[in-house]
Amino acid sequence: MAGGNDAISGILFLAVEFQLVLLCSRDLVKGQAIAVNKTDLTNVYRDYIACLNKQDWPKLEQFVHDDVYYNGQRVGLSGYREMLERDFNEIPDLYFNIQLLISDSPYVASRLGFACTPKGKFLGLHVNGKRVSFTENVFYQFREEKIEQVWSVIDKAAIEAQL
Amino acid sequence: MAGGNDAISGILFLAVEFQLVLLCSRDLVKGQAIAVNKTDLTNVYRDYIACLNKQDWPKLEQFVHDDVYYNGQRVGLSGYREMLERDFNEIPDLYFNIQLLISDSPYVASRLGFACTPKGKFLGLHVNGKRVSFTENVFYQFREEKIEQVWSVIDKAAIEAQL
Repeated sequence: MAGGNDAISGILFLAVEFQLVLLCSRDLVKGQAIAVNKTDLTNVYRDYIACLNKQDWPKLEQFVHDDVYYNGQRVGLSGYREMLERDFNEIPDLYFNIQLLISDSPYVASRLGFACTPKGKFLGLHVNGKRVSFTENVFYQFREEKIEQVWSVIDKAAIEAQL
Repeated sequence: MAGGNDAISGILFLAVEFQLVLLCSRDLVKGQAIAVNKTDLTNVYRDYIACLNKQDWPKLEQFVHDDVYYNGQRVGLSGYREMLERDFNEIPDLYFNIQLLISDSPYVASRLGFACTPKGKFLGLHVNGKRVSFTENVFYQFREEKIEQVWSVIDKAAIEAQL
């Protein structure tokens, strides 16, 4: 009986070990899957910001839906692109710098930092080539890895304080 | 041998079953723990906003660290409370309305909506008792369920457009 018990214990031990290995590898796979999903949306967002900084407008449709809304208004992909092109025209050294990025699918929230030189008027302010620093706190709603809603607030008061 | 194999197989099966039960219950506990953590932070945040709307200032220390920072400046709990009390003094019908809340521990991002009547000047604008609607996009960094950093942008341009 003792020998039999040992054999059974050994098998039990192996079975338990095997299950623990299974359990650990499953957790790893699961953990990775969660990480990939989460990372995916932040990676998509980082690629979107890189696209803006390169002014790679033909690529914009990879990140933005045709029927995108900006602050509650349907601007569409073309309107969205025009808005961005206008920004780069008014601010030739415009560069989007992600200061804080949080993701809670289907949402992404980002605090963007800017240090740039608007040529003339910006947000109704006569900046006239002065270098200013300011932030934008912006929320995005994604659908199938593309932006469909944007809610943005730019810190106009910070710019005013520097003029 | 066949009988012995059956007995061993049976034990193996039981061991596997036992591990599967362990694995499932562990996943449940883990899933719940994740859900509770996530819900906890949004619940804590909702309670914080309720505290502000009730102007329950003695309770504020439950939600805000002594050494809290606001837009990069250390204001401390007392400075934070003074800022909020000043807001309610300047805007007697101030009410914080959560429009969008996303959580990615230790961060919370919230889009707050306001429809209120600042008595005189607000953000340097002569509102003078006009009812205005605007939003605030705000990020919070929590430590041990208390706010230790706030990065806020209020939509001043939206208020200006209504004056």
